Parts: sequence; structure tokens; C-alpha cells
Amino acid sequence: MTLRTALTVRFGIDHPVVLAPMGGVAGGALAAAVSEGGGLGLIGAGSGNQRWVQRECGIAKAATSNPWGIGFLTWGLTHEVLDAAIAQEPSAIMLSFGDPKPFVDTIRATDIAVMVQVTSMEEARRALEVGADVIVAQGSEAGGHGGGRATLPFVPAVVDIAGTTPVLAAGGIADGRGLAAALTLGAAGAMIGTRFEATPEALLDADEVEAIIAAQTVDTTRGRAIDVASGAAWPEQYPARTLRNRFTDEWQGRESELDDSVRQLYLDAVARRDFDYVPIWAGEAVDMVTGSNDAAVVVAQIVAQAERAIDAVGRLSA
Amino acid sequence: MTLRTALTVRFGIDHPVVLAPMGGVAGGALAAAVSEGGGLGLIGAGSGNQRWVQRECGIAKAATSNPWGIGFLTWGLTHEVLDAAIAQEPSAIMLSFGDPKPFVDTIRATDIAVMVQVTSMEEARRALEVGADVIVAQGSEAGGHGGGRATLPFVPAVVDIAGTTPVLAAGGIADGRGLAAALTLGAAGAMIGTRFEATPEALLDADEVEAIIAAQTVDTTRGRAIDVASGAAWPEQYPARTLRNRFTDEWQGRESELDDSVRQLYLDAVARRDFDYVPIWAGEAVDMVTGSNDAAVVVAQIVAQAERAIDAVGRLSA
Repeated sequence: MTLRTALTVRFGIDHPVVLAPMGGVAGGALAAAVSEGGGLGLIGAGSGNQRWVQRECGIAKAATSNPWGIGFLTWGLTHEVLDAAIAQEPSAIMLSFGDPKPFVDTIRATDIAVMVQVTSMEEARRALEVGADVIVAQGSEAGGHGGGRATLPFVPAVVDIAGTTPVLAAGGIADGRGLAAALTLGAAGAMIGTRFEATPEALLDADEVEAIIAAQTVDTTRGRAIDVASGAAWPEQYPARTLRNRFTDEWQGRESELDDSVRQLYLDAVARRDFDYVPIWAGEAVDMVTGSNDAAVVVAQIVAQAERAIDAVGRLSA
Repeated sequence: MTLRTALTVRFGIDHPVVLAPMGGVAGGALAAAVSEGGGLGLIGAGSGNQRWVQRECGIAKAATSNPWGIGFLTWGLTHEVLDAAIAQEPSAIMLSFGDPKPFVDTIRATDIAVMVQVTSMEEARRALEVGADVIVAQGSEAGGHGGGRATLPFVPAVVDIAGTTPVLAAGGIADGRGLAAALTLGAAGAMIGTRFEATPEALLDADEVEAIIAAQTVDTTRGRAIDVASGAAWPEQYPARTLRNRFTDEWQGRESELDDSVRQLYLDAVARRDFDYVPIWAGEAVDMVTGSNDAAVVVAQIVAQAERAIDAVGRLSA
């Protein structure tokens, strides 16, 4: 049994499961593994650099002949890096956080699909206006950076304005019930991040994977302390959700008080991989991540559970 | 066609749709109308007073012979008011925001069902421990007061610990797709508030209903300014989501600066029904509320759309 949606048809893939392009986590190996599992794996290139992009795309291409893609932070992307990605012939390029317009035309001149992640209705309207092939409606439950809408009410609102453009639900989905709910809301699939952190293919240390598995939702925090401390140019409207640690317990919400000495302390501590400081992306659904498995197995588990959930809800009708 | 769940079986009702017991909005007329429509209407008694409870319960009983209920703010409830409610023989009493223990035993000595609303896993465990008959897992998308979890990932996490106790999803649900998604997540029904504000039976002025219909999600705000200004004894962990107005634009997030003169200004303005100050509860799903209809019609529309959504998701399997 498979779940056939506008997404699976568009990419010729088996399952409506898309790997979130998590910066520092989703390299070529994880993206390829998700694609080999029948989903769509997206490499998380952040604001990217050419060598990293070429290397990770190369890893993906060596590991799968299925469709895969790559995601960038729009506010940090350059045309040079984008061109390097296009040269690798991914099936999809995703743009998140920032006006996609400067890059969409370049991508649309190829046969690569443009996915645009949005966090507000204003961003959704803009993404449709510039011609996105797929819209990713991301809720504030997501790990990493995001906006202010929650997934459950945001997805159908975006679906209502998207016409025939497929919409993916992102944020707060870690299992098959979440995927099934996303499809029920009218999404063509789910983008999943945190659950794929607990895989051997993720670019994470064993300590980080263990922390994800052990964490409950109350162990997550959302704010700007890590971006202010690291000097990252993240736009203010996108705070990040991570696991709590000593640093966020002390500084989240007090970003304006972070002085140069604390910033240096933070940078030094992160550089030596001190987990009192290193940020670990984690979404609100982290409490549903209870073990590590190969990414392809995770895809299969999610899809099987989604099919059971859809079957169960169908049986409620009498 | 009907959707049969543990909730509909428990109460002998037609539809897994429960009216959120919105203070100042859900009186006996609205509760009865939802119950007449086949859902479960709950009167929103706030911290309650005996005369108001007796009057509104009387209105409900005169208008429907179907099951109905009443909801209280646990932190403000007294045994006197609870006894007055029990004397009216509702089918359910709902307790929200605060330790339910002091009241649960009293209710459980009757054949009235105890519904406990929860906003965290800790509260969910406590509700199960004290013997709630129904758990309402409320996400931060909800209008009015609430906690910090979002509905989509919160509901399945609560379902996982609830065993055979039915769980309702609350927050961010205003249409049939949301109800269908809630059922897909394992909930036994959805609690819906904002959508029922746009009904002739709600205790709202025409101006307020129009504001709800016109509002988009960005027009909502969440915080403590209204509670600090009004001197309400609301616990700090439960901010309230309302439509933005002049007062919240000026004071949300600056609650600590609210002095006695501003508080008096606020109280006077609310007393004279100045909508620059009067708070109007509204959840994130307010953008899906696009018109006013009789509450029973709203129930029927939501259920019909849910059935279509369930049917559509079932057809994805091939």
C-alpha cells in the first residue's frame, strides 16, 4: 500500500515524507537514505558554501539514484552557491526564510522544482506569486528556526490559497499519526526533521542523538540567544527551537544583555563541543522520538503508522 | 453518516464536536444549540457565581433535552458554585487551569462526567491520576487562556499516556479538516471555540461577531496584559489569546509597567464597552471563520466537512 499525493506524483517517489533540510544535520548521507527509503531527502546547506554543497551532493548522488534535493537559507544564499547546487542536478531546491524572488527565476530556468518554506500567510502569498512549485507551511512547533503560526491551523489556511500547488506540513510531525493528520488537513505530505536526527546517517554525535532520544518537549526552548551569541545574521522574526542547555537556561529571553565576553565564551565553548553550549535542534514532537533507526526504516515506520491511522479514522464512519 | 468515537458513545451524542466553555461567550443558549445540533455544548461559567450558573443552566435545560455540560476555571471555583452546578444535573463538568483534585471527587460521587483540560504532559498525568473521564488536550493556538504546547504534537503525546480515557483536541480547530485531523491523531473529538463565537446564540455583541469574522490570524495576540490590567487572578503560565486592539498593541509584553492609572483607564473603558479595550477571545484558526450561522448549522457543516476530509484521505491509499 502507498499513499499517493500531488507530491509523490510530482517527484515520482513512493512516500509523501520529506526530510527537513536541517543545517549541520542533514548531509548527503541522510538525504540519500531518506530518498532510498522512498521519501524525498533534502540536504540542509544552511547559507551554504560551494565546497560543502559539492561534497554533500556528491555523497547523495553516490548513494541513491532516487530524487533528492537541497535546502538553503534564503537570507544567506548567494547566486554562486545556488549555481553550484544547480550544477549537481538535484530534483528540488528549497528556499527558507527570506524573499525567494531573487533565486526563484534562476531555479525555474532549470527543471529543478522550487520548494519555498513559509511561516505566515504573507510569506505564503509571496511564494505563490513568485511561482513556487511546492509550498512548505512550517509551524512554530518545528525544531530550528521558524515563525509564529502553529501547524494545525496554518496548513489548511495555506491550502485554501494554494490552488493546485502542493502544500507540505512542517513542524510538530514525528510519526505516522502526524503525517496522516497533515494529509487530512489537505497537505500533500509532511516535512519531518527531529525524528530523522535519531538516525545513524545524521551528521550528529552519539551524544546528540542520545540527547534527542531522552528529551521531552519541556526540554525544548525557543528564542534568539544562540543567534545573538554566535553573531548569526538571522532575521529577528525567526527564533530557533533547540534543546535547553546551560546557555539557553541562562540567556534565552535576555539576548539584549549578551555582551562580547559572553559571546566569546559561547563561541569557544561551541568550538570545543561543550554541550552546555552547543545548540541541538529539536521540535515539539521530540517526545515521540524514542529510539534510533536507519533513516529508511524510519520512513517505512512513519508510512505504515500513517496508513493505520487513516484506516482507523475511516472506520469511525458508520 | 456519523462519526462514532469514544466520546459520542460515552455521552450518547451524534457528533464528536464539543463547544469550548468560553467565559462570557458560551451561555446556556449557545450550549443548548450545539447540543441540539448533535454535539456537546458546554456553558462557560468562568470562576462562576451561583445565580449565573443557575440561570444559564436553566436556559440550556429549557432549550434541549440532549446532553450538555458546564466548564469552570479550576483556580477560581468554589465548592458552593460547583454544588449549584451539580444540582442542575449537567452531563459533564469541565475543569480547566489548576489542580482538579479538590473538585473531582465531588463530581465523581455523581454520575456526571468529569472533563479535565490540560496544557502540558504534567497536567495530563495529573488529570489521569485523579480520575478524569475525558481529557481535553489544549494547544496554544486556542483563543482565550492556555499553555505552551501546540495541538498537533500535543494530542498524540497525551493519547499515548491516556489508555482508554478519551482525549479531545482543543486549539486551532475551526472546521471539518481540523476535526478530521484531530480524530486521525487519535483524539475522540474536537473542542471548538472561536468558530462558535460567530453564531447568533453566542453572548456577544454584533460588533464582536463582525470583528471575529473580519479577523485574520495575525490580528490575534497572546499575553497577560488584559489579566494584569483587570487584576484577574489568572496564574502566570496561562496567557490569553485575543484579537489585538489599541490596548494590547500598547501593553502586551509590557505588563510590569501597567500602573494603577492605566488599570483604572482599562476597567472604565471595558465597562463602557470600548472596543479599543474590550478583549475578544480568538484562536489562531480565526481566519477560517468567515461568516455567522446558527450553532446547529455550524456543527453540521463541520461534521460534513470532516467526513469529506476523511473520505479524501482514505482515497490516497492505493
